[in-house]
Amino acid sequence: MYQLFIANKNYSSWSLRPWLLLQQLNIPFNEQLQQFQVDNYANFRSFSPTAKVPCLHDGDTQVWESLAIVEYLAERHEGVWPADATARNYARCAASEMHAGFVTLRNVCTMNCGVRAQLHNPPAALAPELARLDELWQQGLAQFGGPFLAGKDFTAVDAFFAPVAFRVQTYDLLLSDKALTYVKHLLALPAMQSWYQAALQESWREPSHEAEIGLYGTVLIDYRKC
Amino acid sequence: MYQLFIANKNYSSWSLRPWLLLQQLNIPFNEQLQQFQVDNYANFRSFSPTAKVPCLHDGDTQVWESLAIVEYLAERHEGVWPADATARNYARCAASEMHAGFVTLRNVCTMNCGVRAQLHNPPAALAPELARLDELWQQGLAQFGGPFLAGKDFTAVDAFFAPVAFRVQTYDLLLSDKALTYVKHLLALPAMQSWYQAALQESWREPSHEAEIGLYGTVLIDYRKC
Ligand SMILES: N[C@@H](CCC(=O)N[C@@H](CS)C(=O)NCC(=O)O)C(=O)O
Ligand SMILES: N[C@@H](CCC(=O)N[C@@H](CS)C(=O)NCC(=O)O)C(=O)O
Repeated sequence: MYQLFIANKNYSSWSLRPWLLLQQLNIPFNEQLQQFQVDNYANFRSFSPTAKVPCLHDGDTQVWESLAIVEYLAERHEGVWPADATARNYARCAASEMHAGFVTLRNVCTMNCGVRAQLHNPPAALAPELARLDELWQQGLAQFGGPFLAGKDFTAVDAFFAPVAFRVQTYDLLLSDKALTYVKHLLALPAMQSWYQAALQESWREPSHEAEIGLYGTVLIDYRKC
Repeated sequence: MYQLFIANKNYSSWSLRPWLLLQQLNIPFNEQLQQFQVDNYANFRSFSPTAKVPCLHDGDTQVWESLAIVEYLAERHEGVWPADATARNYARCAASEMHAGFVTLRNVCTMNCGVRAQLHNPPAALAPELARLDELWQQGLAQFGGPFLAGKDFTAVDAFFAPVAFRVQTYDLLLSDKALTYVKHLLALPAMQSWYQAALQESWREPSHEAEIGLYGTVLIDYRKC
């Protein structure tokens, strides 16, 4: 059975991607949740070559990097990428764009599922990234008919943007109606709900992740239960 | 025939990746070289959805993001990834790690093929990235027998690290003997030599790319011919 090493559900945006994909495709796996510490290096290096999560173990094989995990699964399971070649190309381009890009969005609107926050004076680079995100989503939704980015089924490209759905919820980001409908659709998935509820139950607070919101915003509500 | 949109060979590290892969695999393509300007947006958007290079056109299909271009080619041509599943997993993990990571190396040691430079006080984050790079390369070279990262043949993972070879040459970066042997092997490939010679012949200087070296280093020699 696969073992998927992830970190705190409240914070770990990269962990969410393969976790959600495995859940949506009903692929069995053991979840190995490791809490973020002030210094993760020694612990994370014991199971991941980059000392980062996510890392998938398949027997003796270690698969690190969320996009490489997706391609590893795509070789072994149906439905990871869209069956249609045009949709699959869109999905891979968009997932790759997310993998390397949207840097300002990722830095300014850090994932913190349980809180709602108000951004103050976000850097100028945020607006063009949100415009590009909206355009990219609308392209997929229009071309492949929705409700997911590459058509009627959830695929890896949706997994790649799932953390953005939590960010939109936390920071109340302004997007088009079509993009917000897609965000609601993602947030309503039972697996997203289950991740979210688990995040709310986490009692751990990791100081550097908590401090990140303060750089560009203020916490308005904290829904975490403990 | 494929059209590959790239930018200045002297500067454009992302462009080099799919260009080199296509050359090494003898896949015919038309090169569309677009010079960097002070503002590329309008020009680059006319052929690439992200306004970035590289972008591959296959008839009406646009494929953006270097890693997505690689996967697009892998569906259509032999030899893009290693045939052996273990080597292929390593290659995809390493390429994905490069795609999203080694940020300090990319920022501090920007690609500028034609010059030789001396780094001054590089940020502390550079050394651990070079150590990880060395480890990652040595893992592949030892496990799959070299001379390429995933075995005897050049594959996409080598294309992903090819810009690092130019960086090692430009900044005289300190790596292990095994890693430096690999760098020499990459630099000696006829296609790398042909990219390098074309870079030296470019007469265009783009101010922001030229200024980047000055942030952490000094130019010692400029081999560009015009
Ligand atoms: N490009 C990597 C990014 C992984 C990443 O940055 N993970 C974060 C957590 S979301 C991490 O493990 N950071 C280690 C640390 O903060 O010490 C991927 O796609 O998996
Ligand atoms: N993640 C992208 C990165 C592409 C990228 O950043 N390209 C640079 C040139 S090497 C670019 O086009 N920059 C546009 C600009 O500077 O205006 C990829 O893998 O293709």
